[in-house]
Amino acid sequence: MSEIRQDKTTGQWVIFATGRGKRPDQFEREQEGERQLQQHDPSCPFCAGNEGMLPPLVLEMPGKGGEGWATRVVPNKFPALTPKGDTVRSCDGIYVTMPGHGRHEVIIESPYHNEQIGTMSVDQIRIVIETYHRRFVDLMKEHGTMMVLIFRNHGARAGTSLIHPHSQVVVTGMVPNYIRWREGEGQRYFDAWGRCVYCDVIAFERRDRRRVLFENSSFLAVVPYAAEVPFEVWILPIEHQASFGQISDRAKQDLAAAMEDILGRLHRHFSDLNYNYVIVTSPQYRAREPQMHWYLQIRPRLTTRAGFEIGSGISINPSLPEEDAEVLNSLM
Amino acid sequence: MSEIRQDKTTGQWVIFATGRGKRPDQFEREQEGERQLQQHDPSCPFCAGNEGMLPPLVLEMPGKGGEGWATRVVPNKFPALTPKGDTVRSCDGIYVTMPGHGRHEVIIESPYHNEQIGTMSVDQIRIVIETYHRRFVDLMKEHGTMMVLIFRNHGARAGTSLIHPHSQVVVTGMVPNYIRWREGEGQRYFDAWGRCVYCDVIAFERRDRRRVLFENSSFLAVVPYAAEVPFEVWILPIEHQASFGQISDRAKQDLAAAMEDILGRLHRHFSDLNYNYVIVTSPQYRAREPQMHWYLQIRPRLTTRAGFEIGSGISINPSLPEEDAEVLNSLM
Repeated sequence: MSEIRQDKTTGQWVIFATGRGKRPDQFEREQEGERQLQQHDPSCPFCAGNEGMLPPLVLEMPGKGGEGWATRVVPNKFPALTPKGDTVRSCDGIYVTMPGHGRHEVIIESPYHNEQIGTMSVDQIRIVIETYHRRFVDLMKEHGTMMVLIFRNHGARAGTSLIHPHSQVVVTGMVPNYIRWREGEGQRYFDAWGRCVYCDVIAFERRDRRRVLFENSSFLAVVPYAAEVPFEVWILPIEHQASFGQISDRAKQDLAAAMEDILGRLHRHFSDLNYNYVIVTSPQYRAREPQMHWYLQIRPRLTTRAGFEIGSGISINPSLPEEDAEVLNSLM
Repeated sequence: MSEIRQDKTTGQWVIFATGRGKRPDQFEREQEGERQLQQHDPSCPFCAGNEGMLPPLVLEMPGKGGEGWATRVVPNKFPALTPKGDTVRSCDGIYVTMPGHGRHEVIIESPYHNEQIGTMSVDQIRIVIETYHRRFVDLMKEHGTMMVLIFRNHGARAGTSLIHPHSQVVVTGMVPNYIRWREGEGQRYFDAWGRCVYCDVIAFERRDRRRVLFENSSFLAVVPYAAEVPFEVWILPIEHQASFGQISDRAKQDLAAAMEDILGRLHRHFSDLNYNYVIVTSPQYRAREPQMHWYLQIRPRLTTRAGFEIGSGISINPSLPEEDAEVLNSLM
């Protein structure tokens, strides 16, 4: 079982998951041969037909017309956290430690090895979002869950070790102080202005237009005013909503349309861009707060975090959000 | 001139330095040829004899016996921040922005292209530290300086674009909220316990011994209890000291000995490890605080920050600090 330790000087939690060093690395293998990806890879545990290599399924969503499957959820074979243990903190000398309790699941986004979100149809992405939502809602109900984080790592620079299209879900038994810090900023704004800061940002961006990439009845996609990396994109629900758990069926369809548009553009413009995306959302007990607002944050990996970023927390972005938006809007 | 913008939802500042996209990238060139580095590279602006390619010197430290030079400081040719403008904030719609005012300098650590900190003698490192200290003290005195950050990026994965051994100094006209957040943690601990949390950590680690790598009369080097990355090392002054500016001449020598020991071990064990190091220290006006404590933080780049880290601020470290310390202590 892994262990979670708190840095006494910063309050930050760190997960120690020593088994993860043994993970496979398909990327190294792929780069050697640089071969074209096939629809089916006989050695890939996520490919249809290779179920024998998979742990028991947590969830499976049926394919079109009920044939086969569209998405699957399985426990991560090299989990950072596991359901063993509990969330009880204890002392280790002067430090605070807790068991590596939580969950770590993989969402297989397609039966096909060579597919990816950037080339999927709106309907396919809609099923991926549905899968995210079902796991989010169910995992939030479990005893001890404090945070459900859904994210996607695309490409070796973004930290993935497997090529088959997939996202991940991690459940933790504590709320990281990073999330509390963001909450605190929202709280101070709300207490000063009586409004959600994200709602104000959305209203301003819709008027200003310079950083808007996409809009439909439920979502707005913008390059944020203080984007930390080139071509960062936020997809925000236009109506106030603190938790991803509250997304409606109609909004799922609209989110799929926004993702198809944005991730498709990024895919076509940058020829298989490495990126991460994260569903930034409220932790447990904060789903009804008036000052929090969930969104999908997309972070292309075109720059390197170096000493200045590590020491100051300030990013150096070589490109202006308005110019990034102009570039992305020229590629429809 | 660059621009600094604040994210309205998090309060984080981001530097937009659009000229930096044009930086050279020696690493790509080197990797193509994979040739052995020579002591002198005719195309390198930092090499002795190539002064014509350099901006005017800010500082030069003499070489052994007064011959030639040991270190040099020059303005960064592709600066993230420049002395132009001021630190006055203004509104950009609903957002806060300020000019990219500050400084960005390069500390050339040696006349020789193929040298590096990991192979330098204690005496050479002592001069590098002396150079850091002179710039730190002088830059802290300048009008508008709020933070002086000294850091080193070693290797392409650590974000450097030039091979010649060098560090960087960035001066900002604002204190990032990341630093304030760390200060806040120290403040809460001090208010509760009446002691500096770093002093308590040092005292505990010296008793516990499991994570100690090196100790002399002024410095302790440990793998921190909640290290975010494998083989992270902190070199901390044993006596309480809030600011790097206060380091004594004797302590400079002791820090050089600690760095020679630790960076030498990392260099020999990992064959030219990519890493960053940062002098973590108090910002302006906080040099005498009883709850802050400066240290040198070394961060090897063996892992990749992925979606989970971006979304939660929690790192997943595949190796335990005690085990890392054991490995490093087996390589004397």
